[in-house]
Amino acid sequence: MRAFKTLRRPVFSGRTSHGKENVVALKAIKAGSRNESGIAAAKTLLGGRFGDRFQTGEAIRAQHANTTTYIPAQLPDAVVFPENAAEVREIVEIASAHRVPLIAFGTGSSLEGHVNAPQGGISVDMMRMNRILAVNAEDLDCTVEPGVTREELNTYLRDTGLFFPIDPGANASIGGMASTRASGTNAVRYGTMKENVLAVTAVVAGGREIRTAHRARKSSAGYDLTRLFVGAEGTLGIITSITLRLQGIPEVISGGVCPFPTIADACNAVIVTIQSGIPVARIELLDAVQMQACNAYSGLNYAETPTLFVEFHGSAEGVELQSRQFAEIASEFGSTGFVWTTNPEERARLWKARHNAYWAQKSLKPGAAILATDVCVPISRLADCVAATHEDIAAHGLIAPIVGHAGDGNFHVGVLFDDRDPADVARVEAFVERLNSRALSMDGTCTGEHGIGQGKMPFLEAELGGALDLMRQIKRSLDPDNIFNPGKIFT
Amino acid sequence: MRAFKTLRRPVFSGRTSHGKENVVALKAIKAGSRNESGIAAAKTLLGGRFGDRFQTGEAIRAQHANTTTYIPAQLPDAVVFPENAAEVREIVEIASAHRVPLIAFGTGSSLEGHVNAPQGGISVDMMRMNRILAVNAEDLDCTVEPGVTREELNTYLRDTGLFFPIDPGANASIGGMASTRASGTNAVRYGTMKENVLAVTAVVAGGREIRTAHRARKSSAGYDLTRLFVGAEGTLGIITSITLRLQGIPEVISGGVCPFPTIADACNAVIVTIQSGIPVARIELLDAVQMQACNAYSGLNYAETPTLFVEFHGSAEGVELQSRQFAEIASEFGSTGFVWTTNPEERARLWKARHNAYWAQKSLKPGAAILATDVCVPISRLADCVAATHEDIAAHGLIAPIVGHAGDGNFHVGVLFDDRDPADVARVEAFVERLNSRALSMDGTCTGEHGIGQGKMPFLEAELGGALDLMRQIKRSLDPDNIFNPGKIFT
Repeated sequence: MRAFKTLRRPVFSGRTSHGKENVVALKAIKAGSRNESGIAAAKTLLGGRFGDRFQTGEAIRAQHANTTTYIPAQLPDAVVFPENAAEVREIVEIASAHRVPLIAFGTGSSLEGHVNAPQGGISVDMMRMNRILAVNAEDLDCTVEPGVTREELNTYLRDTGLFFPIDPGANASIGGMASTRASGTNAVRYGTMKENVLAVTAVVAGGREIRTAHRARKSSAGYDLTRLFVGAEGTLGIITSITLRLQGIPEVISGGVCPFPTIADACNAVIVTIQSGIPVARIELLDAVQMQACNAYSGLNYAETPTLFVEFHGSAEGVELQSRQFAEIASEFGSTGFVWTTNPEERARLWKARHNAYWAQKSLKPGAAILATDVCVPISRLADCVAATHEDIAAHGLIAPIVGHAGDGNFHVGVLFDDRDPADVARVEAFVERLNSRALSMDGTCTGEHGIGQGKMPFLEAELGGALDLMRQIKRSLDPDNIFNPGKIFT
Repeated sequence: MRAFKTLRRPVFSGRTSHGKENVVALKAIKAGSRNESGIAAAKTLLGGRFGDRFQTGEAIRAQHANTTTYIPAQLPDAVVFPENAAEVREIVEIASAHRVPLIAFGTGSSLEGHVNAPQGGISVDMMRMNRILAVNAEDLDCTVEPGVTREELNTYLRDTGLFFPIDPGANASIGGMASTRASGTNAVRYGTMKENVLAVTAVVAGGREIRTAHRARKSSAGYDLTRLFVGAEGTLGIITSITLRLQGIPEVISGGVCPFPTIADACNAVIVTIQSGIPVARIELLDAVQMQACNAYSGLNYAETPTLFVEFHGSAEGVELQSRQFAEIASEFGSTGFVWTTNPEERARLWKARHNAYWAQKSLKPGAAILATDVCVPISRLADCVAATHEDIAAHGLIAPIVGHAGDGNFHVGVLFDDRDPADVARVEAFVERLNSRALSMDGTCTGEHGIGQGKMPFLEAELGGALDLMRQIKRSLDPDNIFNPGKIFT
């Protein structure tokens, strides 16, 4: 069974992360109409062409449906494992001819039902396309196939003195990260996938492979097709390679932890740090509930108040300077306990609470499901948005710690709930709606980094209104047969 | 004549920059077919609606045709001066109904014929829409109308401690800068318009106004329409407001000048500086011919060898550290003469050669026209590309100094030529073709920051091939009547 070789990485089961079937759907996603005859024809053709790299067993289809999210799984009809761009072209040609959905699949770590198959169709597992095609150290760039994960890339790069900074937490595939416009803890310094993808190649409707740009660090050559594919969630074509910007591995990294009296103090310290041009590499906010959870889970004794976890990258002199500047700012906003270090072991210990935040959340209500929200607001509104959300959490008796990428104004509420209890599910749904509305009312977005997928479609409509029509026009024009990941982003 | 109030800024004449008609067209742009009846109807309607804010005189039409470029002017049939988005909507509705081209116009400082009217139509002068709508200092962002120029914005911002960093040289309008994806000397640190536009509103086909995003610093909410409008050169709609990222004005700025034995040494110093993560704010390369011209023009006595002009932004300690680190790198590559200062007057004096580079170029051949090329290559290829270009210049007896934004791999050859001499024009055309081909063969682009306009259309085809079809599909889908700046980017 060669096909299983590709599943060497841990693959999540087709269940919610706590291991139980979730029987009550949040915002149940309607299955679309299926093109039965086309699917049957495509299965026959792909089976003949790809042999044991074409699989239809339920277990493997379940592994390729929705995985790590609260959204119920919708299985594809089959999974195909291309090994190069020419094979992707063949797959797209067959799917185009028979109007069959193709859902590109990476590690399955997306959070909003991106890889579900509401109209059935074929999951295209890209994880065998995992070659690093080129590293241009002098240009600080590399080109990889979409199935390379960020950890694989960084392991490969280690000897070059370079690294790829984007860190969304999960060891996601670069193709998936590009497709959801991922970011994470150090976007405040290094940007998101939007800033770090120089070019992609993609197979588009009809089976042509196009290249959106070359390797120049900037270009004014026509429409920015690169940025159109970054964040398109696989709805405009299948990405076959990605050219990425890289960064020099910092000579020295300092890590620090800094408690504040209030959320507002912590947020004000963030604002002044960024206004001052201090190139902070990470600046993460954990609220008091999260800090309590971290202390309990990891046996720590941090102050159980809103806390910033910071990291600085640079030369020894540079991080020393940045850390001192940050300490001054923090003390202006009432913090007395900033501790920091450049010693790697001590740094790991200081940041342990942040690294274990997710597991600490889970420990607050063993057996519960977690829904991770993803709003992002202008940083001047971050304190207000978090404070209003705290009130909301309290008013509705939710258990919901908060972790935020404070430098970007992006925060995740980890809502713990019983996904088999309709009342609890309804309560969480209503909370998420209020939270997203609150962010939009503050000039924010319903998704800072997770993407729309199936889960946030109604909120995107509220967020962008008429601009959604342009997205639909582009989709219809570039994918006239609607074969690329249909039923995502918009209806 | 209220209409002329808007022309308070110096407006270039409809001639080449040296003040003579250029009678020999470089890559003469064919005029497209004109919709005479539609244009007549639209003129009547717009004249009735806008009164003296609708002008048809030849002088004003000439001011709104192509201005600062080598490409011959193609005049619009009229110029309209909207004062708000509602008026832009009315104009677009009329143009849509009668299928009449609309060419959005800012300061007229584009370099590739972007504002020519090959099919006639209406120039939409956006310079009365020059309000600064909001400055959100805590969020480091602002929202402006498209007719605000970058200098106006920075003057307005001065008291806030913030600035808008993108500096393409010309005092361009923000709308124009967004539309050409402009950048300039400090893109190496602060990015281009692509990285610095958070959102736009635009009036699109049919007269609807859409908003591409809100003010969150990052978002994964659907297709990146913001980046689609940035660089679209007015072909997808008319931008009515732009939300920009701002930066804190650096506490201290240091400026320095650093001569090198060879172009390769200078380029290697740039590569190592960037690899080392030194956040250089500007790093400009002037070649030996340019340095000779600068010495002669400004009465200076710099070494007449390839020279880097650098600038660092930060705290006093920060720029001191960065300057020392750069000095070490420069000395590794054979430079012995790095001088730098944080004193503003001395800094201005040090950078005088760079600031006067254009005028120094012109002084090399009084009365000549200048064509500014714009290739951009991966920085590892910059030395090769400049060296090969030097050989080419020598082999063809051209006078052509080079100034480059070395940190981005982008350089401009200022080719001096007699635009009334067909032989000279043919020689320059052939040179530009070779230069662009050379850049493409090195994984580069034909335009780092000037855009495609009319001048670079054939090179875009060579650069992106099949991807151009996607651009055309998007254009047809979002502008089905082809009214927005037709005949630009692609045919």
